[in-house]
Amino acid sequence: MSNNQHQVEDHNQNQVKNRDHRHSDDSSIQPSDQTDQEYLQQLRHSAAHLLAAAVLELYPDTKLTIGPATEDGFYYDFEFSAEISDKDFPKIEKKMKQLALSWMSFERIEVSPQEAKERFTDNPYKLELIDEIVKAGEAVTLYKSGNFVDLCRGGHVENPNKELKYFKLLSVAGAYWRGDEKNTMLTRIYGTAFSSQYELDEYLRLQEEAKLRDHRKLGRELELYFIDEMVGKGLIMWLPKGVIVRNEIQKLALEKEDEAGYQQVITPHIAKEELYLTSGHLPYYQDSMYPPMKMDDGVYFLKSMNCPHHHRIFQHQPLSYRDLPVRLAEYGTCYRNELSGTLAGLLRVRGLAMNDAHIYCTKDQIKQEIGEVIKLTRGYFDIFGLKDYWFRLSKWDPKHTEKYIDEPENWQYSEQMMREVLQEMEVPFQEADDEAAFYGPKVDVQFKSVIGREETMSTIQLDFMAKTRFGLNYIDENGQKNGEVFVIHRAPLSVHERFLAFLLEHYAGAFPTWLSPVQVQILPITDKHLDYGRTVFDQLKQAGIRVELDDRSERLQAKIRDAQLHKIPYMLVIGDQEAADQTVTIRRREGGEQQTMSIDDFTKQISVEVRNRS
Amino acid sequence: MSNNQHQVEDHNQNQVKNRDHRHSDDSSIQPSDQTDQEYLQQLRHSAAHLLAAAVLELYPDTKLTIGPATEDGFYYDFEFSAEISDKDFPKIEKKMKQLALSWMSFERIEVSPQEAKERFTDNPYKLELIDEIVKAGEAVTLYKSGNFVDLCRGGHVENPNKELKYFKLLSVAGAYWRGDEKNTMLTRIYGTAFSSQYELDEYLRLQEEAKLRDHRKLGRELELYFIDEMVGKGLIMWLPKGVIVRNEIQKLALEKEDEAGYQQVITPHIAKEELYLTSGHLPYYQDSMYPPMKMDDGVYFLKSMNCPHHHRIFQHQPLSYRDLPVRLAEYGTCYRNELSGTLAGLLRVRGLAMNDAHIYCTKDQIKQEIGEVIKLTRGYFDIFGLKDYWFRLSKWDPKHTEKYIDEPENWQYSEQMMREVLQEMEVPFQEADDEAAFYGPKVDVQFKSVIGREETMSTIQLDFMAKTRFGLNYIDENGQKNGEVFVIHRAPLSVHERFLAFLLEHYAGAFPTWLSPVQVQILPITDKHLDYGRTVFDQLKQAGIRVELDDRSERLQAKIRDAQLHKIPYMLVIGDQEAADQTVTIRRREGGEQQTMSIDDFTKQISVEVRNRS
Repeated sequence: MSNNQHQVEDHNQNQVKNRDHRHSDDSSIQPSDQTDQEYLQQLRHSAAHLLAAAVLELYPDTKLTIGPATEDGFYYDFEFSAEISDKDFPKIEKKMKQLALSWMSFERIEVSPQEAKERFTDNPYKLELIDEIVKAGEAVTLYKSGNFVDLCRGGHVENPNKELKYFKLLSVAGAYWRGDEKNTMLTRIYGTAFSSQYELDEYLRLQEEAKLRDHRKLGRELELYFIDEMVGKGLIMWLPKGVIVRNEIQKLALEKEDEAGYQQVITPHIAKEELYLTSGHLPYYQDSMYPPMKMDDGVYFLKSMNCPHHHRIFQHQPLSYRDLPVRLAEYGTCYRNELSGTLAGLLRVRGLAMNDAHIYCTKDQIKQEIGEVIKLTRGYFDIFGLKDYWFRLSKWDPKHTEKYIDEPENWQYSEQMMREVLQEMEVPFQEADDEAAFYGPKVDVQFKSVIGREETMSTIQLDFMAKTRFGLNYIDENGQKNGEVFVIHRAPLSVHERFLAFLLEHYAGAFPTWLSPVQVQILPITDKHLDYGRTVFDQLKQAGIRVELDDRSERLQAKIRDAQLHKIPYMLVIGDQEAADQTVTIRRREGGEQQTMSIDDFTKQISVEVRNRS
Repeated sequence: MSNNQHQVEDHNQNQVKNRDHRHSDDSSIQPSDQTDQEYLQQLRHSAAHLLAAAVLELYPDTKLTIGPATEDGFYYDFEFSAEISDKDFPKIEKKMKQLALSWMSFERIEVSPQEAKERFTDNPYKLELIDEIVKAGEAVTLYKSGNFVDLCRGGHVENPNKELKYFKLLSVAGAYWRGDEKNTMLTRIYGTAFSSQYELDEYLRLQEEAKLRDHRKLGRELELYFIDEMVGKGLIMWLPKGVIVRNEIQKLALEKEDEAGYQQVITPHIAKEELYLTSGHLPYYQDSMYPPMKMDDGVYFLKSMNCPHHHRIFQHQPLSYRDLPVRLAEYGTCYRNELSGTLAGLLRVRGLAMNDAHIYCTKDQIKQEIGEVIKLTRGYFDIFGLKDYWFRLSKWDPKHTEKYIDEPENWQYSEQMMREVLQEMEVPFQEADDEAAFYGPKVDVQFKSVIGREETMSTIQLDFMAKTRFGLNYIDENGQKNGEVFVIHRAPLSVHERFLAFLLEHYAGAFPTWLSPVQVQILPITDKHLDYGRTVFDQLKQAGIRVELDDRSERLQAKIRDAQLHKIPYMLVIGDQEAADQTVTIRRREGGEQQTMSIDDFTKQISVEVRNRS
């Protein structure tokens, strides 16, 4: 298989931005086309001027350096004589608003290098910049707005007094001049600006939300996993509570795959280079694989994909048309050589457990099988309560055939089949030319997360190439060896690490009961209620509920606070009355009225909730 | 950790012979001490002479080479002019018996090299041997029995006419002279000899049994796994039916470990060399590990043990005495660099899934925890119907303290605790001096398989060393950091690959219903019963039973034969009567009377059987 495949499967790890918001209901918060994006750049660059002007008014001996727009806002780097912190932001923002009123325009003034240098004679940073501009053969330009003049190449809004209204300073950080640690450490002030208060508020709300929902913070608080430098970067050490969540998701996958006629296989985490030379991972993909291990019988590699192993299982014994489709599934762990600097929490890892499967079918079965995978995928997302997603049919481009496997009939046929499935299922989808993998078209599942980030969660890929590379075949109705075996790669639950990061963010750590590492926390009001607490504990444990008894001699409020922090769905308060009546008083994580019921009733109720994954 | 640990854990892979048969009920078939073993060697070597003499009588132009005793018998390598097969064995054996009657002794004759060479002048093999004897400065000796004389160093029985009675020729194979493929290909005839007919018969019976129960044959027939040269040697590719068995065993482990207060963790399959330098695997154990992989942030190794990862999890957050014991479990896959030539089926592999766990406890908790592990172990063996096992307390040797970690008090105390546990539990056990691991005493679980092979199935090891190497500690009752953390390594279900080989042999492939990949096969008598067959199928599937419908247009007898071959516990025969009455007619794998009952009753019955693992 060529490199293309891996780019695609890597989508499972990367956050792939998608600019088309056809199915997005609040596209207002993100620019929907190139022009909007350009305007925002100008607005934010103008705001950087405004920040510099305000700082200079408030701290006159500050030296200005540069202040560009960024993807989400802007910054300006200063050499302050005073110390600055975010406590100073209100004062600076107030000054910015005040100055903006008098900024009618950005006036362009072309000057000689000499003039420019005289103006900035006390500022070595600007002098350095002027020299560079001259060296590049460009004109030296200043921009003036109100009383503020800065060295600048341009790119501003036309009516700053009207447009520079919706901005906010966000943070302060150290930054070396020109990013070089040998240079002076400057003070960088970050901010952002939008064209309406609504957009600014929405952006700030999502930023706050993202902080609360950060999977690294939640992963630590909920004791799900950690990363140990002594074990290695990008390698997840799953703690007991993380294993429970992972096992529940894996159990769900096993159950649904079993219903859908999949068979589970388990393959080694390594293989000989012969396998990867056959698949084409070597040499095309070698950079993304771990380095080779030379053994007494050949060279071995850690697997970065499960497909080659599965292809070998498919072809290990002769199959007839009656056996097809064959669906081989594995929650397999793969290893990829990502640069250590790019690794981040669960989102970018080196060891990844994939909810993987490969479907081997005839051409006639493609439509049916793709449809079943989409159905399976939607079923999962229903269970997790995920709604904000749509599909993208990624096609080849007949004008650029050199980028794709040369089987025009298969391209045309399978793209049409995929289109029909999506239409018949009445799911939201769009089509994208020239976005297919090298070896076949695919259906991407596009997601919008609760904090407004867009990404490809998983892909359903058709593969015309494996059949040739691996000599896949079956005995057809005519008793002939038939090599037309089509492979569907699919991983609806994505890479486990990444999916868990997504879920943590989605639920803000408050997993539904069936996924919660601890489902019930028993809180005896005092130590004398411990005995009854143990009775309740035993009954729930017996029923297969994941229950903990808080037997510390703490006050009830402290116990409740801890259970809340761990986002446990049910807290059972146990006191005299409950012990006398053989009942429990239920506090739900999300608040609401407390309720008292018999242990039996509660056990039944929660068992149903867990069984139904509701 | 030193190399010792790994020798011990390697017991999980090796078949470790144990000479003490105190708990073995038919020790007669194996030599019980060194003298017996020596005698058998002499007997078998004498039998090799006898074979050579008989061959020479029957095929006079044969050239003799060498004929040693082996562990289980003997062989002799010949250069035949005729072609020989096992069809010739009766004739040769008859001649052997006939000649033996006249062999009153083995007469030693010392000769000069010249004399010897003259005698063997037509035999280049013997001439080569004579030269070597001379070169080594040894005397050249011939041994004569009856009319047969052979070049030999000696080691025979005293009364061959009386003792050489119970022998059998077993097989014929090609073998290069001196094992070098550049030399002539000779014909090797294998045989064995015992000191009684009973022992010989018993040996032959077990050999037959072993063939039938061979896990490689059964693994193939039952479609459990295969080994793919393109993926690599010693690496198991688990087929769907093998995964079902593995998952059932793993589910059992999870269930029992959960009841026993274990917590599951999942750790990466690789780690940085820093981890293994800390544990001591590097450099002591490096030869048994896969070669290093150099990455941008350091050197990585495939893990050959789970312990170092678990130790890191234990110490990743501060724990108090209230948290101990901590029991971390993982059905983790490890990789070991065994020489490719030594790999064999499931018994000796390079990738191994261990039913692993590490218990971290205080000194006071050792006895209780060891006892709990023994209880857990016995519970498993009860479920699998394994009875022929006992325990061995492997102790250090205070006379050879240099071989052991220098903590005499801990040795004394923990050995005594282990002894008390074994005594109080009233389990059969023996004690063995100087058999401990470097870092602590252990309790080995010794097994006798159905084919009479003895092995160590698993070990329960106490470890005084990890605490120092990893700086393990907890906050004790006095609020002090306390480094006295004792580690118990345990894997009662051994390495999965090896345990499955053992089970395959034990059950001769006929797994109990709960473990069977297919539990029920539905056999419609004709195609017109297919519809009702599907009804039965759906109901059983709905109840979670692993059921298959044989919908081929084959005769019933053929369907029964196939189900028998796959050792499926229940066959349901479906015909007119069954369809009319909504019943099924049950044939059991092990035979016995057929039984007809309603679908509901059968579903209930088998569900209970599976749930109870009976």
